[in-house]
Amino acid sequence: MIGPKGATRTLRVTRYRAGTKDRRRDVLAVEEPLEIRLSWVEDGASRSEPLAVTMRTPGRDFELVAGFLFGEGVVSGPDDLLDLTYCRGAEDQEYNVVEARLAAGRTLDWGRLRRSFYTSSSCGVCGKASLEAVEAQGCTFLEDGPEIAEGLVAALPDRLLDGQDVFARTGGLHAAGLFDVAGTALVVMEDVGRHNAVDKVVGHALLRRLLPARRHVLVVSGRASFELVQKSVAAGIPMLVAVGAPSSLAVELARRFGQTLVGFARDGGFNVYSGPERVR
Amino acid sequence: MIGPKGATRTLRVTRYRAGTKDRRRDVLAVEEPLEIRLSWVEDGASRSEPLAVTMRTPGRDFELVAGFLFGEGVVSGPDDLLDLTYCRGAEDQEYNVVEARLAAGRTLDWGRLRRSFYTSSSCGVCGKASLEAVEAQGCTFLEDGPEIAEGLVAALPDRLLDGQDVFARTGGLHAAGLFDVAGTALVVMEDVGRHNAVDKVVGHALLRRLLPARRHVLVVSGRASFELVQKSVAAGIPMLVAVGAPSSLAVELARRFGQTLVGFARDGGFNVYSGPERVR
Repeated sequence: MIGPKGATRTLRVTRYRAGTKDRRRDVLAVEEPLEIRLSWVEDGASRSEPLAVTMRTPGRDFELVAGFLFGEGVVSGPDDLLDLTYCRGAEDQEYNVVEARLAAGRTLDWGRLRRSFYTSSSCGVCGKASLEAVEAQGCTFLEDGPEIAEGLVAALPDRLLDGQDVFARTGGLHAAGLFDVAGTALVVMEDVGRHNAVDKVVGHALLRRLLPARRHVLVVSGRASFELVQKSVAAGIPMLVAVGAPSSLAVELARRFGQTLVGFARDGGFNVYSGPERVR
Repeated sequence: MIGPKGATRTLRVTRYRAGTKDRRRDVLAVEEPLEIRLSWVEDGASRSEPLAVTMRTPGRDFELVAGFLFGEGVVSGPDDLLDLTYCRGAEDQEYNVVEARLAAGRTLDWGRLRRSFYTSSSCGVCGKASLEAVEAQGCTFLEDGPEIAEGLVAALPDRLLDGQDVFARTGGLHAAGLFDVAGTALVVMEDVGRHNAVDKVVGHALLRRLLPARRHVLVVSGRASFELVQKSVAAGIPMLVAVGAPSSLAVELARRFGQTLVGFARDGGFNVYSGPERVR
């Protein structure tokens, strides 16, 4: 299920409980860097450049890279990606570098990409500019979309849990899952990073030609930040259900793009911060 | 307490509970972009460049910037920073751009900085390379350091909670706090981002000339990732106590630098993943 590297590692820890102390084995979520490289053909010559490094839990790396590239606007569909491969090198790093080969004619705006990682647009930095940047990226208002029964919305966090493995349920990993309107999970992904779990889900949907996912619901185990709303709006997902709290800018972004944003989905209840018309 | 912009915002939401539905007011954590700009003098000319944008909860922005710059190796002490100011501009962005003016003679390695944001070092990408990068940054093994009584370690998460405001306790914000060996909080900071909360604490300590904080304990409300261990090791902090789980690479980094790493500090118990000799 989790690819060439393991998602968990066992080690010995010292455990203190109520004045007693013992040594025991403990299972940890693995966190390792993943370098994302792009290769493409320019003026007849092959080129390859590193784009980003993300700290992630190994497994589903190709989906992670596909979802990351989609979220950054590097690819807009599965046909923009010729293939995804692990770069072979020294043993240690063998499965920590993924190269994405872009289709002919897919041009790269390195200036824009670099800006999106570490500097702002020239128009200043504020919540409004952040919202406008999502529009500039090509995201459009989410018209219509399905209605979901209140009881099903409330049940989705448990269904996400059902899709996680035993370790992840202990809180060691974040989870994100894509569900259809009947509440069936298409895919559940796990990672130490919330954004990575969502990238894995979006990449999975992209590679299976399911984007835009206009009839689906994204469920996440943690909070809803601006970044998670951005990724799901870009994927055309009309409803985001978070077990945790949304941030102010996440709500503003969801409202601007017509996404239904649900927060605090736990203990059978939930709050709707945006787009309540999709909750029946 | 939280500077020119508010850390929370109130809005109306639709609340579903056990088949009932009502409209009520809800408090959200504010998330806004902050652009960090550097200005310095080079060959007699003043220069200014944007360095990074982070999504953060407004408040304690100068400490956030100071801590971020320290963690990235841009400044190594308070004297490297001549001042920190908000850049005045259009109304919306007035408090979302902080400029850090570097002391004369403080040189910038833009190539290294950019690499650290979006590409890897040339030696490949793996956990080992990540650990070595922390060494290359100048971090050294944490010798000695205080011993803390088991009961005090177990009590620290509650003391962190005591330092948070009422809203933050509801789970809307992450917290990080620096404590002395008697368990007294020097400072508690809050943010939607875990790394920002830690940057605010480290920046506070830097500006008050408390670094390296070799007799202190950093307590965080969430998980311990590689990044949080890296930031605290750079600040010379010999013990990190996390309410949540550590990742595999966080443990490896703590062990390599002799930091005591405590995880799952809750309900009166905790696990020690590294450096148990500091727990008495």
